[in-house]
Amino acid sequence: MRIKHCDVGIAGLGLIGSSMAAKLSGGGHCRSVIGWDVDPGVSQKALQKGFVIESKESLNDLASSSDVLVLAVPPSAIVDTGREALRGSRGKVRVIMDTGSAKRKVAKGLAMEWNERYVGLHPMAGKELGGIENADPALFEGSVTAVVATSETSTEARETAREMAEALGSRVVETDPETHDRMVACVSHLPIFMAMALALTAGECGRECPKLKDLAAGGFKDTSRVASGPSWLVSEIWEQNSDFIAPLIHKAATFLEMMADSSGKQLAEISKRASSARNSILEGRFASLGGDHS
Amino acid sequence: MRIKHCDVGIAGLGLIGSSMAAKLSGGGHCRSVIGWDVDPGVSQKALQKGFVIESKESLNDLASSSDVLVLAVPPSAIVDTGREALRGSRGKVRVIMDTGSAKRKVAKGLAMEWNERYVGLHPMAGKELGGIENADPALFEGSVTAVVATSETSTEARETAREMAEALGSRVVETDPETHDRMVACVSHLPIFMAMALALTAGECGRECPKLKDLAAGGFKDTSRVASGPSWLVSEIWEQNSDFIAPLIHKAATFLEMMADSSGKQLAEISKRASSARNSILEGRFASLGGDHS
Repeated sequence: MRIKHCDVGIAGLGLIGSSMAAKLSGGGHCRSVIGWDVDPGVSQKALQKGFVIESKESLNDLASSSDVLVLAVPPSAIVDTGREALRGSRGKVRVIMDTGSAKRKVAKGLAMEWNERYVGLHPMAGKELGGIENADPALFEGSVTAVVATSETSTEARETAREMAEALGSRVVETDPETHDRMVACVSHLPIFMAMALALTAGECGRECPKLKDLAAGGFKDTSRVASGPSWLVSEIWEQNSDFIAPLIHKAATFLEMMADSSGKQLAEISKRASSARNSILEGRFASLGGDHS
Repeated sequence: MRIKHCDVGIAGLGLIGSSMAAKLSGGGHCRSVIGWDVDPGVSQKALQKGFVIESKESLNDLASSSDVLVLAVPPSAIVDTGREALRGSRGKVRVIMDTGSAKRKVAKGLAMEWNERYVGLHPMAGKELGGIENADPALFEGSVTAVVATSETSTEARETAREMAEALGSRVVETDPETHDRMVACVSHLPIFMAMALALTAGECGRECPKLKDLAAGGFKDTSRVASGPSWLVSEIWEQNSDFIAPLIHKAATFLEMMADSSGKQLAEISKRASSARNSILEGRFASLGGDHS
């Protein structure tokens, strides 16, 4: 099955769902892209903007018309939406995938219903302004998309997810739900908590010292950037992945305390280790690893 | 005294010193820009590149030819260099400033020798690649420069520092050494330690899970960026400002532990507080406060 011969249904037309729809519609990647959102106004907008060729009035309608169904709803709603879609599908949907940022719970819930037809898809891109108003077909260009197969996932589902990721302009990394969640806990979720801790600390300093804001430069801006993401997402990430994130938060806090107890000379060594750890993780991935201390 | 009628001497032609020289030479901001570096090869390069109109063979030569002397040497060398320059100056230097990223120790040492002629200058810009090879006259465009006056600093010195900062293309923030160090501890130094803690934690994860690097995206890259700066600078910052930085590191670690002990619902509230703290510090300073969770 190639997605160019498929009707692709997108359930949930927020930033991720509508950006996917816009990208897939634009390139002739599929036979058709159809959509549905819990908010009928959003479905209408997707149609008006040309992101979908048809907007369905219900999830049932969407599921019964889709060969490939993408659940781009908030993490906490994925399993229920997938369960409902199964009832509406009438055997039409051959592959179902979700776009959530943690996979164990979702994979367990969906694989129980959809078995080999379920595969996880995690396009690791976004911006702080959500919603269809901020949709961008280029959102995934140059990004990484995790294709997350369970032990049941069929070859067809896996290949479809790969093709989908590539159609988005993304580089594919294949993994399983457990490994996926362990890795994103570190490179995607932990940075959010680090950024929040920095922003909260600076917030306290700022109350004592109003001029603080005049001195904040690129270092503070970048290190705290992901603290400006949507708060509901932090909460949902936590509900799904706290068992992997919490030990990393403790580890990072321990590193901080260790640094606070170090001498300048020791810190030079620690700085070298940190810099080399960063470089080994990012090497070859980004053209510039700009690291000024401004 | 206007700097356009001054011979400006720059001692130390690393990234900051040579970028300043290049910018000041280019715009006719001073009567002349002359330079000296402890490495004669670097002084020669500055001359060849046209950053300075003359490169001096010794600090003494530089000091006896400069109306305004800028000490752009590493933080730990500033006080000694300033002391030596006083001996070489023969009354020529009317204003001396340093470019270090912490000011209390330096200000104490230099004010003891230079009294009202000393003023601190902290152009808050940089990049991870140091040295004259990476000099860029545009390095300070749009940056913040702290003008740091002691209780003794003369109006002439303060005005000269302001003029210098503006010539660099920088926005001026005036403050005193203690307040300066307190503020940079939070917005400039703490981010480095947060970034280091993140990089070290991810480094440990990466050893357990080699695929980690494939998933690292913009969130990890930006949050850890300042961990790639020069390690000697971390050490020197610590030597000069650890009494202000350490309590902030403890505070950030405490915030992290608090978050690890929170529920998803509580974290949504904490995320809102963090985001609003960040925005209130950066508001009006940057066109985009991009905060995606990628």
